[in-house]
Amino acid sequence: MYLLTFRDETGLRLGVRTERGVLDVDAARRRLGVRNVPQSITEILEGGERALRSLQAFVERVLESGEVEWVDEAGLTLAPAVPQPGKLICVGLNYLDHCRETGMEPPKAPVLFAKWNNALAASGETITLPAASSQVDYEAELAVIIGRRCKGVSPEAALDYVAGYTIMNDVSARDFQFSDGQWVRAKSQDGFAPLGPYFVTKDEVPDVQDLPIRLLLNGQVMQDSSTAEMIFPVREIVSYISQGITLEPGDVIATGTPFGVGMSRKPPVWLQDGDEVAIEIGRLGRLVNRFRRA
Amino acid sequence: MYLLTFRDETGLRLGVRTERGVLDVDAARRRLGVRNVPQSITEILEGGERALRSLQAFVERVLESGEVEWVDEAGLTLAPAVPQPGKLICVGLNYLDHCRETGMEPPKAPVLFAKWNNALAASGETITLPAASSQVDYEAELAVIIGRRCKGVSPEAALDYVAGYTIMNDVSARDFQFSDGQWVRAKSQDGFAPLGPYFVTKDEVPDVQDLPIRLLLNGQVMQDSSTAEMIFPVREIVSYISQGITLEPGDVIATGTPFGVGMSRKPPVWLQDGDEVAIEIGRLGRLVNRFRRA
Repeated sequence: MYLLTFRDETGLRLGVRTERGVLDVDAARRRLGVRNVPQSITEILEGGERALRSLQAFVERVLESGEVEWVDEAGLTLAPAVPQPGKLICVGLNYLDHCRETGMEPPKAPVLFAKWNNALAASGETITLPAASSQVDYEAELAVIIGRRCKGVSPEAALDYVAGYTIMNDVSARDFQFSDGQWVRAKSQDGFAPLGPYFVTKDEVPDVQDLPIRLLLNGQVMQDSSTAEMIFPVREIVSYISQGITLEPGDVIATGTPFGVGMSRKPPVWLQDGDEVAIEIGRLGRLVNRFRRA
Repeated sequence: MYLLTFRDETGLRLGVRTERGVLDVDAARRRLGVRNVPQSITEILEGGERALRSLQAFVERVLESGEVEWVDEAGLTLAPAVPQPGKLICVGLNYLDHCRETGMEPPKAPVLFAKWNNALAASGETITLPAASSQVDYEAELAVIIGRRCKGVSPEAALDYVAGYTIMNDVSARDFQFSDGQWVRAKSQDGFAPLGPYFVTKDEVPDVQDLPIRLLLNGQVMQDSSTAEMIFPVREIVSYISQGITLEPGDVIATGTPFGVGMSRKPPVWLQDGDEVAIEIGRLGRLVNRFRRA
């Protein structure tokens, strides 16, 4: 399933993208007089497999009934794919050619860093370039959504704890990043973690290590790689983190970016007022954001 | 007020420490038939000044009524002083003599890093030393609890957005910290952010930059300083972070540790199975944790 959260005057609403359009789950549930259907990403994450199956069955029933109005996705204001993640965990330097372009040694273990939740943004949201930075960069990343609490899992079992996938733009103020040494401030400015558009459930992704990943800046391809190029695949990342850090449903792990970031170009490319950044990862859709100067 | 959260078979309960003992807010409210009293730290943070005044008035009424049973604090199982912080923000290298002992340059601006929420622990909780680290260290820190949403505040106005203070032990696996370069994994192992015992409201602390801060390892004083020694005082830290990062009620900011950490001693002192670490900060109480090998 392709889950999404959208905003209207009542707050956040759960939607499911289908071939006919987006299903407004609560509206359909009321229309058909059905109870016990999850109403939010949080309820799905708390309810686990059972909640997902219940939602799936409901969507199938709606598709058969023909009684429900479909919403046009183009008219929706989205929320982040996971509106309230427990943690935002990021992996740095996880593609060999990105290590080379930044002049950094390929790491012997995943390099972890954090973003804070104020950085979250949705696909379609306009992001403000902070006045204090002149070196804001983009990074296309596959993001993993944890579905079950775990600690100390093996790489072999790690994907059992994953609920789904989405896309993150790991927006980074390079001037802050290299003056601070620690990366979190540079990567947690408001809006610096666009996440979406969809929460794509795991069953839609037969092999997470075989997805094309591309980033386009104003329509021009800047990053073009495959998740096959990761140094540490998703299963190893999840296992590694979980050795000492309990993972919980709703935690999001961004898995690093491939070759082609702005800072490594000659001359460097920094995001400018009016720029549009789109990230496409096979089967996961397209995350699009425009950037504006403060 | 000295607020605390404790656990019983029903879940988390709000308490207020008074000279007569701890008030179980919900039990007292039921006994006296009063409504509209906040029942959790979350409700207090969402309700702001009004919620605090309502709780204060209720506590005074209870103290006068004499009809309520008081709970013995020694018998309580505490939760972290803020059970669900939105962000855990930490400042590194914020005391001059701690910079010297670690051989690091005093920073020109606050050095920010993150902990994830899995690291939270309560005063009184036993913390497991991770099997993979042999260099776990302690750090006594004053922690600031944000009470009002803010962005871009001046140092002069910054304390208006603070709700209160507590104590954090910024537990750190030094071997992880220096092999990773990024600090978050080393400082976010499960249980590595003991926070408490109390959420001390701001009015109890006339001058946050004039508090003695001490850490005792098995009763022996290891750190002994004053918050007067901070390089960046609380008002500057809050202002600095808020320039690009929106702060929200319930965010916690740990403000750095003074001289005397274990790694700088000759020979170094690492936490061992059975060690007890106690941190005392004037007016904020005493945060105590025991450490155990996995």
